Amino acid sequence: MSESSEIFSKVPELGYREVAPATDPQAFARILEARRSVRVYDQTPVPERVMREVLEWTLMAPNSSNLQCWEFYWVRNPEKKKELAKYCFNQPAAKTAQELIVAVARPSHWKKHAKQMVETFKTAEAQGQKIPKSAWAYYQKLAPFVYTQGPLSLFGYIKKVLFFFRGFTAVTPREPTDHKGMALWASKSCALACENFMLGMAAHGFDTCPMEGFDSRKVKKLLNLKRSDEVTMVISVGKRGNNGVYGPRVRFPSTQFIKEV
Amino acid sequence: MSESSEIFSKVPELGYREVAPATDPQAFARILEARRSVRVYDQTPVPERVMREVLEWTLMAPNSSNLQCWEFYWVRNPEKKKELAKYCFNQPAAKTAQELIVAVARPSHWKKHAKQMVETFKTAEAQGQKIPKSAWAYYQKLAPFVYTQGPLSLFGYIKKVLFFFRGFTAVTPREPTDHKGMALWASKSCALACENFMLGMAAHGFDTCPMEGFDSRKVKKLLNLKRSDEVTMVISVGKRGNNGVYGPRVRFPSTQFIKEV
Repeated sequence: MSESSEIFSKVPELGYREVAPATDPQAFARILEARRSVRVYDQTPVPERVMREVLEWTLMAPNSSNLQCWEFYWVRNPEKKKELAKYCFNQPAAKTAQELIVAVARPSHWKKHAKQMVETFKTAEAQGQKIPKSAWAYYQKLAPFVYTQGPLSLFGYIKKVLFFFRGFTAVTPREPTDHKGMALWASKSCALACENFMLGMAAHGFDTCPMEGFDSRKVKKLLNLKRSDEVTMVISVGKRGNNGVYGPRVRFPSTQFIKEV
Repeated sequence: MSESSEIFSKVPELGYREVAPATDPQAFARILEARRSVRVYDQTPVPERVMREVLEWTLMAPNSSNLQCWEFYWVRNPEKKKELAKYCFNQPAAKTAQELIVAVARPSHWKKHAKQMVETFKTAEAQGQKIPKSAWAYYQKLAPFVYTQGPLSLFGYIKKVLFFFRGFTAVTPREPTDHKGMALWASKSCALACENFMLGMAAHGFDTCPMEGFDSRKVKKLLNLKRSDEVTMVISVGKRGNNGVYGPRVRFPSTQFIKEV
């Protein structure tokens, strides 16, 4: 572990430089303002190019170890869409939606994606790009150790015990240590992407509603998903009806949530 | 349940209307482009007003049932900041950061926040605003049923069995059904807010790095958090050094993730 920690704490010499484009904070503030959870949509269709662009933006979210354990199902088939709205209890936000997206965390995909990262590095190096040693080590050695939990999470529990004792003498990574932890791990990244989706729609003048009230079992069956997959949320899309926003945004005082220590 | 489902599937008459401000999709595309995970920061300080504004923006994210089970610790004390960087394995993204934020999911806060929502409704109605029946019912009846898991998640497991059998004949809500499920539930909302934070910083011309490599036990101890709290991520902030971005953004082909069904 000590050799690898040195790899991770050193800044590699890569010669890559990326300058950020100029950005407008006020434009972002307006997008945040525009994004409200809309419960009733009008009949305005969402242009296909808007859907496609915003879905691409969705995938630009940062995600854990770049393992991209997420999927976004755009349910277009009218029968399936109707079924999906039903599985969201036919709440108006689902029933009146022009489009419905199901965001899914697929924790088990870490393994094939770690391999795909290694392949990507090989291609990049063949094209003259430098890949940090730490990145190779991460996907080939560390990631398999961290993300493998084994049947019934048995390997995870062994790691948990090891980490517990290691923790007395050293700063120690701890999670995830079971399959539920893997679901949480993948769900976080998927949620980051969902926020991109909702803000992206707001940027295009369209509304969304993130829904967690659904029958996850039936939604998974509809999409041929596995038990280990986690439906992060269903997001409906459209243009707000006159009665689409139920009231002003409610947030408790920010001093309850922002703590300076 | 049938009476309440009707409450939730009907559109209430509230007379509230909110028009979205005009937004600029290209401005959002530039913000997304600017947001890269930065591993090395230069010495540029982050103005306090930027930190405060972006933290306020963070709280504008949608969140599950508006129960706001999140907290954002801005670790400013130099000693604590150093400790925190150490708990992030002194990775350059933490060690060279100008500012460090710890995003925490606090699932147990649902109860007091549900009560706070009811108080908020009372105040709003006293001021002449209409609150939908479904909202009252949600915080007073449904939320306590959904989010109470009981000691050792026993009530959660009872619900799980009930939902399982109910699921044969009706569309049925299922999660969360234990304390780990509560952690996942709150973490999702917290992650939505984290994305606001990172994009908000990018909008202001500052960089971030979301980190999940940390010793959660030690971080919780540093912030006096409970075992049931979940450190969603540590986010470092600053301005990218010349060598701050390690390489071009890597994403696998979007057809792997965007599925049309």
